[in-house]
Formats: sequence, structure tokens, C-alpha cells
Amino acid sequence: MPNPTAAMIVIGDEILSGRTRDSNMHYLAQELTKVGIDLQEVRVVSDDAAAIEGAVRALSAAYTHVFTSGGIGPTHDDITADCVARAFGRSIDVRDDARAILQAHYDRMGTELNAARLRMARIPEGAGLIENPVSAAPGFTIENVYVMAGVPAVFEAMVASVLPTLVGGRPLMSQSLRIFRGEGDIAGPLGELAADFPDLSIGSYPFQKDGVYGAQIVIRGQDGAQVDAAMTRLSEIFGA
Amino acid sequence: MPNPTAAMIVIGDEILSGRTRDSNMHYLAQELTKVGIDLQEVRVVSDDAAAIEGAVRALSAAYTHVFTSGGIGPTHDDITADCVARAFGRSIDVRDDARAILQAHYDRMGTELNAARLRMARIPEGAGLIENPVSAAPGFTIENVYVMAGVPAVFEAMVASVLPTLVGGRPLMSQSLRIFRGEGDIAGPLGELAADFPDLSIGSYPFQKDGVYGAQIVIRGQDGAQVDAAMTRLSEIFGA
Repeated sequence: MPNPTAAMIVIGDEILSGRTRDSNMHYLAQELTKVGIDLQEVRVVSDDAAAIEGAVRALSAAYTHVFTSGGIGPTHDDITADCVARAFGRSIDVRDDARAILQAHYDRMGTELNAARLRMARIPEGAGLIENPVSAAPGFTIENVYVMAGVPAVFEAMVASVLPTLVGGRPLMSQSLRIFRGEGDIAGPLGELAADFPDLSIGSYPFQKDGVYGAQIVIRGQDGAQVDAAMTRLSEIFGA
Repeated sequence: MPNPTAAMIVIGDEILSGRTRDSNMHYLAQELTKVGIDLQEVRVVSDDAAAIEGAVRALSAAYTHVFTSGGIGPTHDDITADCVARAFGRSIDVRDDARAILQAHYDRMGTELNAARLRMARIPEGAGLIENPVSAAPGFTIENVYVMAGVPAVFEAMVASVLPTLVGGRPLMSQSLRIFRGEGDIAGPLGELAADFPDLSIGSYPFQKDGVYGAQIVIRGQDGAQVDAAMTRLSEIFGA
């Protein structure tokens, strides 16, 4: 059975303007690979309602799961929750369960739950909440979309809340070999190897360091024995 | 006049599997911001022909420029050039001008221009070449799409070849202020400021460090005087 598939939507002008370097994509990619969910596409979109809604609609129709990161805080530029609600034709308002979580958190901190903070309790009708052990304000899940914060510590904590609830697949096994020859010398035999193991993904990632050329060959697949067999052949071919 | 827009397509299973952390997106975002071209969307897609073709078609129709990174080397998993040709209904084959560039390069290095390396001279009909001062194998440009290598040093060199040929816009001016209060306290006055300066983008990026909460407020816009005025107001409001 093929593994479940996933896509991610990263929301944020600060990444597209080059001010901030995204780290949530790399984190999610690693976590999904561990549990056998295949991340097949990532879209980075700006803080624009039409862009967010369009991406949510397109990707939720195409993949098993969709994870979003960013745009769920208390400020005027946090529009993700409203866009996701609209994408699914759901109403959205401050919800009692989310408000209670925030109220308890700010009471503990001696901080007022003002109108801005209350925006973080806006949850689409019918959505489930995603726990946020870092700063309380919850994410939410609606249909097959998981809406999470952009701040890396919070995003990572929410991913940890969500992943155990998903049915994973067979984790991808991977082995790699560094070959100190130009890719042009490796390509012929490598193509034949790939043709002989059609169920495996065999990737070649060239590097160049201190004037030495080479490539990291990565063999990935769900069947560990096949990965072993292909790696043995690769080592024989290149005498490593 | 609004600035030209851009999108990027990052091609590579190695990024989606979490093995490698992409750096080309962040680099391109910074370079485009400098010349006043607005990067509005990035898609990361796998080494899959339908995914690459679909992204090229969709984004080239929607944005002024599209930049791709990855999948133009000599190995079996390098399928970008063929996919881009198909997306535009162009034929593709080894082209004499690209072959001559490779031949000269490998002659200098005393390396054979074998069948695998010759794949890197496959260029769609009617495309222009993009110079690669690092490792010779050219990128190419077809319609409004710029097809470049994934290896960061080569990608960056190709971006440097391409950008001077594009008409830029007004570079985005930006100023930022760190405010050591929770976003929930900042949100109200910040929303009013954003409403008073509709031509500016005012973003709030929360941080949390050693138990201290705060937000970096970034004000961006094409009109430096307006950015100055909004930043003066922001400083007054928060007494910074």
C-alpha cells in the first residue's frame, strides 16, 4: 500500500522578502519521513487572503494531509484562520473552548485577555483544537488540514501533538555513499542501477569542495532488503 | 507602477525528504528584494515530471518571472529541462552552442565529454543560455522561465548572470523595531497604524528568548518617506 501523502503551506511575507529563513519546512520534512508520510509539495505564499485560500483548496484536494505554518497570532497580519475557514465554507468566531484555554493561560500570567489576544480563539466551526504547550493559543484541524503557528518552537510542539494521531506508512529507509568522481562519470552506471531497482529512489547530489568533485548517492525505499541490495551493487560498481 | 512579480520552483526530493535544507530560496528572495522584484510564491516539488510541468505552467502564467532550481545535471534523476520543454510544447535536443561550451570546458580539464555529460547540452528549441562560470554546464531561459542549477554555488552564479538582464522595480525600503511586549499588547495600536498606512506592509514577528516576550515590527514599502513617517509614529506609540 502506498504511503499517505502530505503537502505544506508556509505563510509569510517575511520569508518571501528574504528577511527570515524558514526552518519549519525542513523540520516537518524530517518528522514526516520518520513516520512514513511522503511530503510531496511545499508552497510558500504571502500574507494574502486569495493566495492562502487557493493553496488550501488545491492542496487539501490533492494530498492526504496538509500542514500550514504561520499567520495565527493576534496581530492584523494574522489572517490564516479566516482564510482556512473560507476555503472550506465554514463560519468562524471566538469559540468557548479556545477562549477558556487562553483565559486560563493569561490568568496564570497575570495578563489581560484583551481583544487582540481573543482573536487567537477564533476557530472555524467544527474544527478540532491542536494543543500548544508553549504559548497556549491553540492551532486547529479542519478536514485534512492542520493549521499551526509559524514560530519554530510552537510549530514543532504542535507537530509533536499532531503526528501521533496520524496513520503513518512504512518509514523510508535510506543509505548513502560518497563517491569522489564527477557526476558525469557516475551517471551511466547509476542510471542502469536505477532501472534495475524501479521501486527505489536513487538520487545523486553533486558536491564540490576544495577543488574535489564528487556526488553523494542516496538510495531510498520502503523495502530495507532492496535498499541493501542496491547499495551492495553500487559499492561494487564504484569499488568503494 | 507595481513592481514585477516572481515565483520560484525548487525541484528536489532531497529537500522534501528532509535530507537537505534548501538555501536557494532564501538567497533568491534576498536578491530579488534588492532589485525591486516581488517574490510572491515558492513551490517545492519532487523529481516528478507531472509535478514539475504543472508548476511551470501554472506559475509562468501567473507571474512576471519564474526561477527554477535543481534537476539539470547529468544523472537519470535530472529531468527539469525535458519537463520545461514539454510545459511550453517545445522540442528538446543536444544543442551545438551548449555542446561547444561543455566541449571546451572538459577539454581544458582533460575529461571526456561522455553521453551522460552531453545530457547537460539538451536545451529546448528557442531557449537562451544562462552562463555558468562555476562548472560550465549552462542554464537556460525560455519564455519567462529561468532554469538554473540546484548546487548553491552554481545557482548563485546563474542568478548573478540573469538579474542584470531583468527590469527591476522600486526596491523595497524596510525599517524594523524590536518591542519587548507581548504581541497581544502590541496588536491593537499596530492594527490602527496599518490602517493609516494602507500602502505599507507592516508585519509583526513574535519572538521569545530567555523568558522575554516581544515582537520585531517590520515596516516595508516602496516610498521611503512613508516608511519613515510610519516608523516615527510606531516609536512614539511604544515610547522607544
